[in-house]
Amino acid sequence: MTSLLVTGIGSLVTNDPSHGGPLGEILDAALVIEGSKVAWTGRRADAPVADNAIDVAGRAVIPGFVDSHSHLVFAGDRAEEFAARMTGTPYSAGGIRTTVAATRQATDEQLTANVARLVTEMRRQGTTTVEIKSGYGLTVADEARALQIARQFTDETTYLGAHVVPADYADDPAGYVDLVTGPMLDAVAGHAKWIDVFVERGAFDEDQARAILTAGIARGLQPRVHANQLGEGPGVQLACELGAAAADHCTYLTDADIDALAQTGVVAGLLPAIEFSTRSPYPNARRLIDAGVTVALATDCNPGSGYSSSVPFCIALAVREMHMTPAEALWSATAAGAKSLRRTDVGHLTPGAQANLAILDAPSYLHLAYRPGVPLVAQTYVAGRPV
Amino acid sequence: MTSLLVTGIGSLVTNDPSHGGPLGEILDAALVIEGSKVAWTGRRADAPVADNAIDVAGRAVIPGFVDSHSHLVFAGDRAEEFAARMTGTPYSAGGIRTTVAATRQATDEQLTANVARLVTEMRRQGTTTVEIKSGYGLTVADEARALQIARQFTDETTYLGAHVVPADYADDPAGYVDLVTGPMLDAVAGHAKWIDVFVERGAFDEDQARAILTAGIARGLQPRVHANQLGEGPGVQLACELGAAAADHCTYLTDADIDALAQTGVVAGLLPAIEFSTRSPYPNARRLIDAGVTVALATDCNPGSGYSSSVPFCIALAVREMHMTPAEALWSATAAGAKSLRRTDVGHLTPGAQANLAILDAPSYLHLAYRPGVPLVAQTYVAGRPV
Ligand SMILES: [Zn+2]
Ligand SMILES: [Zn+2]
Repeated sequence: MTSLLVTGIGSLVTNDPSHGGPLGEILDAALVIEGSKVAWTGRRADAPVADNAIDVAGRAVIPGFVDSHSHLVFAGDRAEEFAARMTGTPYSAGGIRTTVAATRQATDEQLTANVARLVTEMRRQGTTTVEIKSGYGLTVADEARALQIARQFTDETTYLGAHVVPADYADDPAGYVDLVTGPMLDAVAGHAKWIDVFVERGAFDEDQARAILTAGIARGLQPRVHANQLGEGPGVQLACELGAAAADHCTYLTDADIDALAQTGVVAGLLPAIEFSTRSPYPNARRLIDAGVTVALATDCNPGSGYSSSVPFCIALAVREMHMTPAEALWSATAAGAKSLRRTDVGHLTPGAQANLAILDAPSYLHLAYRPGVPLVAQTYVAGRPV
Repeated sequence: MTSLLVTGIGSLVTNDPSHGGPLGEILDAALVIEGSKVAWTGRRADAPVADNAIDVAGRAVIPGFVDSHSHLVFAGDRAEEFAARMTGTPYSAGGIRTTVAATRQATDEQLTANVARLVTEMRRQGTTTVEIKSGYGLTVADEARALQIARQFTDETTYLGAHVVPADYADDPAGYVDLVTGPMLDAVAGHAKWIDVFVERGAFDEDQARAILTAGIARGLQPRVHANQLGEGPGVQLACELGAAAADHCTYLTDADIDALAQTGVVAGLLPAIEFSTRSPYPNARRLIDAGVTVALATDCNPGSGYSSSVPFCIALAVREMHMTPAEALWSATAAGAKSLRRTDVGHLTPGAQANLAILDAPSYLHLAYRPGVPLVAQTYVAGRPV
């Protein structure tokens, strides 16, 4: 197993509490990779020898981003709908059906190429772990193929047959829930780690969502929920009741919702690029953090409500619009993303962790928020290898 | 002179009114470059032959961005000040003095390397013309060297000795104005096209600004003004009175200011990345556009109030926060940027124009706003050559 010494690191964020501070930051640092894992971190002066060495000339190194929420298996785009929305047409979940129609018509090769393009784009922006949902197929065959395609790119695949009731079931939503919990679940269970439901007025109500998540849990899938995006509702409480890993969106919360998140440890996934691209109010991150809730940041990259693949952009928004500190935002996009996916091997650079990291064209992680919009990732490593 | 046919362009934005629409957009297009100039644009099917050809496989091509406002000659950064500001410390112009101290201490080589790094970063993001100001030297020698360095990178150099009264003249602002209009102006006049003043409470008042701009005009420099950023004030009216090319910032305007801009044709330069990074209210772009004012978009890239070099980020903010359409935002960042710099050879892709363009990893310019934060520029050409 070959070892690589990365030295000359101006600032190394480890998220390793043994190095102190909120981010386990080490200045004038070095890091050793052995095979696919982190073997050592510390002060440059204390670094051990290794087979090979690179000097990053004062650049910052951070754990690769863990993007815990995305919808990458689709065809087409909705740029015109976006432009119309920006001049006054409000966002509605109904637009999802546009993408469903395009996705069903696409070939496997087209869908795979689109996911590959977006995953490559994400890696160039420092993302090393990404969760990918189905949800634009909404037939047994199309959901199964979406998850088979997603599985080629990540272990974090999520069955979202319950994204919206498709047009072909508009008059029979109960029939669609039966499909999602029956034959569709049978077809996808081998390809998904997670099951998710869009709990929202216009999508699925509390009883439907409980039935769907419970059926998935019975088949060994772990629950996560789209909750409380467009208004207050039962999503967060349901996530807490069922032991979900995460309740994502969390824009409209009652005090009881916050208490439930804090008491159960369900991660609140905030997706500020969606509020940016729908011109909606941002979630109140400070209220959540101050109540002791674990907050993750993710892109929710999708062609409808927000088509950004950029975690750095989400960090800049988190600081500007949600009053998170730059350190909180980075931790939420790395360590908390890993918690949202129940992963202990990523989101930090502790010895033994996956050597997933980003080298920044900047002396400090602060630049991710300080230099909004600027592509600052010089190089991304996944499992110890430059990608 | 070698000619290059760029074909397979999904959408070509020319800003050439003869092609119709606000952007002179041509679908399924091609473009011919001869030497450093655009020789032909039109439908792919009508393209003439050329010595060489490339096929961009459906990508969009747009005129290179004209960033009409930046401050790139400096040393150090102010990431810590940014982080403090985001947790409550308000922005003040006084922070400029931190950068002045670092800039004076830097070597020519350090300053030149920093400008080179930022210009390269801008080019990777599609910027092909950039205005660069002095203003972190504030001594005769340091302002002259800033402009000599800037001149290595652009013809659009701006003397901003009147950025702020430096600490060494804190008790003698009139003496500093004498310096700016006397020996400092003598030293810089050969290196600058433009003269600029920061007209603001805490910087320079109306009488000081008129004296400085008038002295510059007498030496052949053309005026532009930092106006009305932090509150209402005399900056816009002064810009109109003196025939400035642009009044930049324009965040706080009276009806009379708007009328003056519309009647004189002075370009209003909006710099929304500054409002983003200072958490300030955005300028009212719609009020300006609806009154017939020419609006340019620029980064104002600087280490204090906003350190973004990204015109695409400014476009996304213009659409989201200032209610500009994606087409208006792109026009403002290209054609109007050129007007702000009184350039007729850039900002459009009409035959005879400089072949300055950006090829996007996207089928339409709409994606610049639709995909915020994502680095979408696949390749930038300056004067007919990939850079
Ligand atoms: Zn989602
Ligand atoms: Zn400025």
